[in-house]
Amino acid sequence: MGIHIRKATIDDMSYIYQLVRELAVYEKEPDAVRTTIKDFESAFEDDIFDVLVAVADNRIVGMAIYYMTFSTWRGRCIYLEDFYVQPSMRRNGIGQSLFDAFIRECKAKNASSAKWQILNWNEPALAFYRKNKATLETNWWNGKLYF
Amino acid sequence: MGIHIRKATIDDMSYIYQLVRELAVYEKEPDAVRTTIKDFESAFEDDIFDVLVAVADNRIVGMAIYYMTFSTWRGRCIYLEDFYVQPSMRRNGIGQSLFDAFIRECKAKNASSAKWQILNWNEPALAFYRKNKATLETNWWNGKLYF
Repeated sequence: MGIHIRKATIDDMSYIYQLVRELAVYEKEPDAVRTTIKDFESAFEDDIFDVLVAVADNRIVGMAIYYMTFSTWRGRCIYLEDFYVQPSMRRNGIGQSLFDAFIRECKAKNASSAKWQILNWNEPALAFYRKNKATLETNWWNGKLYF
Repeated sequence: MGIHIRKATIDDMSYIYQLVRELAVYEKEPDAVRTTIKDFESAFEDDIFDVLVAVADNRIVGMAIYYMTFSTWRGRCIYLEDFYVQPSMRRNGIGQSLFDAFIRECKAKNASSAKWQILNWNEPALAFYRKNKATLETNWWNGKLYF
């Protein structure tokens, strides 16, 4: 199977948005997505995030959504907001290729670290990140306010 | 006591860096700060983060370090990287004034949410955020890679 990893363009946002909705269902939060495709397009045009997409047979089957942040302890840090490969396309190495491309992108942007979050029951994801020698931390809680 | 909240400038970075080091000691991670003042100045000049500072008697005694991110579920989201008031200056309402200014800043930037992290043993911080009606989540782990 031919897999191609590339940077997303504005024209990809509707497909990326569909994958975001699929991932929310997988994360047992189907109603959590309050955004629209327009929100994605607007923020993408304002350079708030970037996306790497995995393409198979001309179809986007995986994505890594990320943006630059700053860790006061480590400096420039890329945050991986969403990382997803469609279930039917797993076990083909697509996730690893996408993650490798993401790491290359972090280094190209002179980031000294990458961060992301994993639901504590998501064993396949935890196994994937352990295999990639990630540090997993369980002692931080998230605070959130919605306006 | 006269307290003044204002946006930080590049000239404030050395003071902000000192507060970051103090906060790391408070968080029982004194050796975690691998950054230098130069890293702060460089990232600040590249618009990677912003800071609100609380000033008392011409001295910076508190700070809120933050940057724009994107939540795929909620849209534009300000991430609060570090929030700190010097221990000797607490119980004067400085923290609340600084947090209120931070929330105004989030709204001015059209963010629909704010996020941050709290160490799970930091009871004073948890109490502060509960008082501010924040949602606290305990079911996400952090993944990290250092390059």
